Amino acid sequence: MESIFETLLTSEEIPEELKERMGEHVRIQHVKKGDLLQSPGALNPGGFFVRKGLLRCYVLDEKGKEHIYMFAPAGWAIGDVEAQAFEKPSSFYVDALEDSEIIVAIEGMHNNYFESLSNEAFPGEMMRLMRRVGVLQRRVIMLMSATAKKRYDAFLKTYPDIVQRVPQKMIASYLGITPEALSKIRKEMVSK
Amino acid sequence: MESIFETLLTSEEIPEELKERMGEHVRIQHVKKGDLLQSPGALNPGGFFVRKGLLRCYVLDEKGKEHIYMFAPAGWAIGDVEAQAFEKPSSFYVDALEDSEIIVAIEGMHNNYFESLSNEAFPGEMMRLMRRVGVLQRRVIMLMSATAKKRYDAFLKTYPDIVQRVPQKMIASYLGITPEALSKIRKEMVSK
Repeated sequence: MESIFETLLTSEEIPEELKERMGEHVRIQHVKKGDLLQSPGALNPGGFFVRKGLLRCYVLDEKGKEHIYMFAPAGWAIGDVEAQAFEKPSSFYVDALEDSEIIVAIEGMHNNYFESLSNEAFPGEMMRLMRRVGVLQRRVIMLMSATAKKRYDAFLKTYPDIVQRVPQKMIASYLGITPEALSKIRKEMVSK
Repeated sequence: MESIFETLLTSEEIPEELKERMGEHVRIQHVKKGDLLQSPGALNPGGFFVRKGLLRCYVLDEKGKEHIYMFAPAGWAIGDVEAQAFEKPSSFYVDALEDSEIIVAIEGMHNNYFESLSNEAFPGEMMRLMRRVGVLQRRVIMLMSATAKKRYDAFLKTYPDIVQRVPQKMIASYLGITPEALSKIRKEMVSK
């Protein structure tokens, strides 16, 4: 079973069928160590498939500290799935840690891509999986780089209806903080 | 665009087409507050689609402390995607926080499900997305509940080829620990 992914990583050239599906939105590129390929705020960001070399993506927190979300050696791909699935601007940086040969799938590519992948019987299923990846990406990035207060805000946004139905200690467990820390955050929110 | 997901959540009965695809592997069930629906070690675990009520899933760490991976109110689903995508035993508990009406998709269901969803032109793509969800699930669970040493072990397993190619401070950033803590872990591993 060869996936698009494997095809992109192993073919000498981009296969005709993919070119037809994605038009000019996919191309082979050589990048140098240190090259910055994507920054936060990019609209409709694409993805990077690594054929040789090494990419990484990372976020900066409020204090400017770097948190690495993932590395992508040969055979891996990096893409801001949250941005793609929810049509938001990108939230992370992508750069090259080594001289690399990559396939760049630029903006617009993923619309064609996901539409072409959808199964006719259940057209929404692929997008649902993408959203799941996007939500998990946000969770990892927030666990790494966001304050407890911001994580609580994200919890309220993700689960607007359950805050009154779940014991405080469970919400604290989900956030990765102590019930005392959660209690403090809630008091500060009320007093504002 | 209605997905399988939406269909399962909103239909009075399970649609005939789904029944045909999944045989006896999917059924409506009513569960009580406190019911345990899945435990770590379950082979070939299925998924739970919540129509009414509230489920959660959690892991226990080495000290027996609870870490909640996610909640699932009405409209959500819980499944151990890592276990499904990599054919591993399940790693978490699922229980009901309220009396709930759910769709249980039991073992074997997802094989039929994912095969039926695959696009004929690119049959591996759906499974690739599932593996991505599975890897992210593992990352979230480890960030919440695993020691730094275990997270480093997982890093070495995930990226066996890059440990010599990446500065130590970047590996520490990926793990969410200080470079000093990583240095200590590495020394302890060498001295064993």
